[in-house]
Amino acid sequence: MPDTLPTPCMICVAITGSLPTKANNPAVPITVTEQIESTQGAFEAGASIVHAHVRNDDETPSSDPERFARLKEGLEKHCPGMIIQFSTGGRSGAGRMRGGMLPLAPDMASLSVGSNNFPTRVYENPPDLVDWLASEMRSYNVRPEIEAFDLSHILQAAKMHADGRLATTPYVQFVMGVKNAMPADRDVFDFYIKTVKRLFGDETPWCAAGIGAHQLTVNEWAVAVGGHART
Amino acid sequence: MPDTLPTPCMICVAITGSLPTKANNPAVPITVTEQIESTQGAFEAGASIVHAHVRNDDETPSSDPERFARLKEGLEKHCPGMIIQFSTGGRSGAGRMRGGMLPLAPDMASLSVGSNNFPTRVYENPPDLVDWLASEMRSYNVRPEIEAFDLSHILQAAKMHADGRLATTPYVQFVMGVKNAMPADRDVFDFYIKTVKRLFGDETPWCAAGIGAHQLTVNEWAVAVGGHART
Ligand SMILES: [Zn+2]
Ligand SMILES: [Zn+2]
Ligand SMILES: [Zn+2]
Ligand SMILES: [Zn+2]
Repeated sequence: MPDTLPTPCMICVAITGSLPTKANNPAVPITVTEQIESTQGAFEAGASIVHAHVRNDDETPSSDPERFARLKEGLEKHCPGMIIQFSTGGRSGAGRMRGGMLPLAPDMASLSVGSNNFPTRVYENPPDLVDWLASEMRSYNVRPEIEAFDLSHILQAAKMHADGRLATTPYVQFVMGVKNAMPADRDVFDFYIKTVKRLFGDETPWCAAGIGAHQLTVNEWAVAVGGHART
Repeated sequence: MPDTLPTPCMICVAITGSLPTKANNPAVPITVTEQIESTQGAFEAGASIVHAHVRNDDETPSSDPERFARLKEGLEKHCPGMIIQFSTGGRSGAGRMRGGMLPLAPDMASLSVGSNNFPTRVYENPPDLVDWLASEMRSYNVRPEIEAFDLSHILQAAKMHADGRLATTPYVQFVMGVKNAMPADRDVFDFYIKTVKRLFGDETPWCAAGIGAHQLTVNEWAVAVGGHART
């Protein structure tokens, strides 16, 4: 038995995402009740973080704080100790609506600190909105997960951290495989890790998410070198 | 004497830029006549590429093809052999106006293939506009200079080149030091070079531009390792 155990791999489960509907996959949990049930299954199977979006009754993306509140209450009851992360991503609302649930003080929230292209449009995260979301996270003591769709987003997070604009050392997630943004490229992945260690310290945890067909590839890369994984 | 001469360093002179006015600096050339005179001075001092924007009479940015035509005519006469590069950047016009001068068939034109943050706003280059600008460059045989404000822009250029969406192998320019985009970071600079060589071949030329206070630093880095420099 080794003297020190390796850091366990944390699995972050993205139960719903912002877009897929029951028509795409009948198993996608849409209502808050379905989301709680689905998360509990993942929690019991070993997931330690839940990345959550909420939906309207017609399955469209929402950032309704009331739905987030019901979800948080159910998760705290059924998945005690699980880390709850809310999405502040741009597909669920416009402008400050994206952060309307932060006063609920989840453990974590996603934070995009730069802009980039998506398959058919620009993913817009204007500087003043980024700063406002970060300041709300500071106010409610919410740890940011930086969604690094590109390399500069990691350097921007380091700058915001140095400036005191982030509540805590951020948890950086590399997002790879989105069309027109960063592809799932192994050399870039290795440089991302090197950059996180250089800017935030060798022991800083990070995670990686591969989108669509790249999910397993990126999970395998991450788990093999000590990162955490996102479904 | 060495058997082979090193590749000479090309200097690209950005005579006007999109924003500074006479009030900021009385030496900024604004009219086409002033631009031609200023470029000729730089050409005689050794610059081999001119990166050009045009301006309206009130000094605001313009993408007026008629002004670009007069500029090109004057440059061809007074700076014979100089490489003429027109800007298709987003500060000079909206949407397809940005490429309205491409039928003039300059030697080169700048091309942003992704989006990123600028000091106070999002620099928007939506995928369909990028593809349209690239297709106009193909039609008029204009060599693209990729403005790499972030790492994914280099990978996106490689993908567009592999897909046949670019007229030729692109000339990649690293743009560093823009607030809220990529800072002037030496490790990133070295990885940019490594990535260009990996994706486009060891002999592919590249250049680097540092913005504002970072101009000299980035020029020195570039010239020392065999890249080209932009004022
Ligand atoms: Zn999400
Ligand atoms: Zn994660
Ligand atoms: Zn320019
Ligand atoms: Zn250049």
